[in-house]
Amino acid sequence: MFKVNENYLKLPGSYLFSTIGKKVRAYKEANPDKDVISLGIGDVTLPLAPSVIKALHGAVDEMGDAATFKGYAPDLGYEFLRSAIKNYDYKKLGVDIDIDEIFVSDGAKSDSGNIGDIFSKDNVIAVCDPVYPVYVDTNVMAGRTGEYNPETERFAGVIYMPCLEENNFAPQLPTETPDIIYLCFPNNPTGSTITKDELQKWVDYANEKKAVIIYDAAYEAYITESNVPHSIYECDGAKTCAIELRSFSKNAGFTGTRLGFTVIPKELKCGDVSVNSLWARRHGTKFNGAPYIIQRAGEAVYSEEGQKQTKEMVAYYMNNAKTISEGLKAAGFSVSGGVNAPYIWLKTTDGMTSWEFFDYLLENANIVGTPGSGFGPSGEGYFRLTAFGTYENTLKAIDRIKGL
Amino acid sequence: MFKVNENYLKLPGSYLFSTIGKKVRAYKEANPDKDVISLGIGDVTLPLAPSVIKALHGAVDEMGDAATFKGYAPDLGYEFLRSAIKNYDYKKLGVDIDIDEIFVSDGAKSDSGNIGDIFSKDNVIAVCDPVYPVYVDTNVMAGRTGEYNPETERFAGVIYMPCLEENNFAPQLPTETPDIIYLCFPNNPTGSTITKDELQKWVDYANEKKAVIIYDAAYEAYITESNVPHSIYECDGAKTCAIELRSFSKNAGFTGTRLGFTVIPKELKCGDVSVNSLWARRHGTKFNGAPYIIQRAGEAVYSEEGQKQTKEMVAYYMNNAKTISEGLKAAGFSVSGGVNAPYIWLKTTDGMTSWEFFDYLLENANIVGTPGSGFGPSGEGYFRLTAFGTYENTLKAIDRIKGL
Repeated sequence: MFKVNENYLKLPGSYLFSTIGKKVRAYKEANPDKDVISLGIGDVTLPLAPSVIKALHGAVDEMGDAATFKGYAPDLGYEFLRSAIKNYDYKKLGVDIDIDEIFVSDGAKSDSGNIGDIFSKDNVIAVCDPVYPVYVDTNVMAGRTGEYNPETERFAGVIYMPCLEENNFAPQLPTETPDIIYLCFPNNPTGSTITKDELQKWVDYANEKKAVIIYDAAYEAYITESNVPHSIYECDGAKTCAIELRSFSKNAGFTGTRLGFTVIPKELKCGDVSVNSLWARRHGTKFNGAPYIIQRAGEAVYSEEGQKQTKEMVAYYMNNAKTISEGLKAAGFSVSGGVNAPYIWLKTTDGMTSWEFFDYLLENANIVGTPGSGFGPSGEGYFRLTAFGTYENTLKAIDRIKGL
Repeated sequence: MFKVNENYLKLPGSYLFSTIGKKVRAYKEANPDKDVISLGIGDVTLPLAPSVIKALHGAVDEMGDAATFKGYAPDLGYEFLRSAIKNYDYKKLGVDIDIDEIFVSDGAKSDSGNIGDIFSKDNVIAVCDPVYPVYVDTNVMAGRTGEYNPETERFAGVIYMPCLEENNFAPQLPTETPDIIYLCFPNNPTGSTITKDELQKWVDYANEKKAVIIYDAAYEAYITESNVPHSIYECDGAKTCAIELRSFSKNAGFTGTRLGFTVIPKELKCGDVSVNSLWARRHGTKFNGAPYIIQRAGEAVYSEEGQKQTKEMVAYYMNNAKTISEGLKAAGFSVSGGVNAPYIWLKTTDGMTSWEFFDYLLENANIVGTPGSGFGPSGEGYFRLTAFGTYENTLKAIDRIKGL
């Protein structure tokens, strides 16, 4: 008789964003005349850059001609894309990453979930609180946690690192020793980040404890301050302790186009075992490459035109972030984030819980955001707004909040 | 200190197709004047159908315009594609599959590996021998097997079902009871298949034993005989015991375009637990949808034009299959497959092992095929040729074999 993976049953009911969706649909049905603006889910709204569109059309034409048609892609990704990544994302930072340390994938969400496959079940993970839910949920699925405690809203056996106002929403080195540490900077959901000096402390800590850091740098394109690192490999010693995840979703608007990559340096080892070769084996066995046409679109992001156009997209969203941040401050809110990230993290008012504030904002300003508590118990009393809307809607939303 | 997943270390060295690649490269370097023809790896060569190319261009244009731009796709796939699948792939067979039983993915290889995530480690799997290596390797990685025995070329704890000449290369019901049964019909690598009556026996067996069948129907478009089922759901009772994997790779040439889907009926349960809902949770947590433009390309496959054009592609390859099969028979080889599948399975001559025959064919006819033993010990003494080359190369290859 077949048996299911019972770890899945530890996951509490519904996914954050489906609960939000349900509430919003119910509100809209009851109030069909209301103009509801969503600054909730972290999905982009601007179209793909013209240089990316051009590359896509070109690659589609190649797929329609026997002479240029492409079948299965190389396991790790096409060399043209991995070379562009190596040169643009790393060499420019003074970081030397070899192309066979770069694994092209269908996005950072898949990679951040799948990366757990190559690690033993018997690792203790440490995550920030609040946190992007995928890190925790995929570890629950893999059996790397105990049961969920509805009172503490935490899983047993996981080290949670609170990110609170008093520490600038940055985690402190944990007192218990973890084996795998998930860090995401610039951070989703708080929009906070850390300096290169602060990140160096994490790298030194991981090397000392022989822990591995899974570093999610999906939002690095939004960094505006010079002392904030774009890659963990800017820190000394990171190659022996860190895996870096990158995405084209937010820097180039690929949320519905799907492309990302993971870097695993060859120096990262567990005893004699190369983590890079384990991931290569997983990639070759359980994945069959990102589509050729999408990889060509990714290459176009690194062209001169592509860089100019995607930087303009990021600047557009960051102008929204500024509008939200300044508007909220002017309205008396306590606000962080929005400087090196497209997320604004605000404190609810009048002692409202995150979900109370969600309902309040939906009903009184017709604005959808994300309750901070949905990202973990330390998010309680906070609320996330995203800068991915149109400028017009962003302005309108802030005017409504000011008028509350 | 972090620990890796030691199950990965049970996997023997190199992947079949990389060993072949290495041998072929060495031969070409030593013999740069030789015209080497590959009938080895199962990769297509014809360009995408014009209707698919048109749909891709149209979708790319949509992604370049803010009014029609698409961000994150729905978790299970766009409804336009799932409806087309429901109506074309199932309703036409008289099978009623609901659209929320259909999960769109980036391909059957990913799905066939990832599907194991939702099952307990404590299931005994049964696989055909010879077998598509991904089924076994992903179960090894998940810890669902014991160690590899180089002498038997088998992993401990796995039920191998030999597919030999005497049983028409179809597996027999196993004597030990499995929990999860992998079946692939039409079969890769043998090109064999089974009738609907025979498949019904497997469905009845699985229901009786409360086992689940993972049914890989990636090659169903190649079926030419009327008593061969296109879907396992043509059998009575399959909805309570079977998961079906489908691919666009071979029927529409999407090997480098990446699209597939998995069907999990809601009736498939383990006690009270719906397997469909577990896969929905995995899909929503560890995957972020196939690209919008690729899903539109998939939809175009189901259009009237798309059907006509992709059926012509399949017919082209099946004409190659016939050419190979008849040519080999005329040359005195013992041959099977090639009637409902793009694979021809031939017996080596003069008592050669599969690898000896590989070298013999490469050196004397400059043809690359795949050694049967690479798919499992019962493949020893057999050899796979694929029909995915050009007609011209296929003819040339057969002439060379006849001249040996």
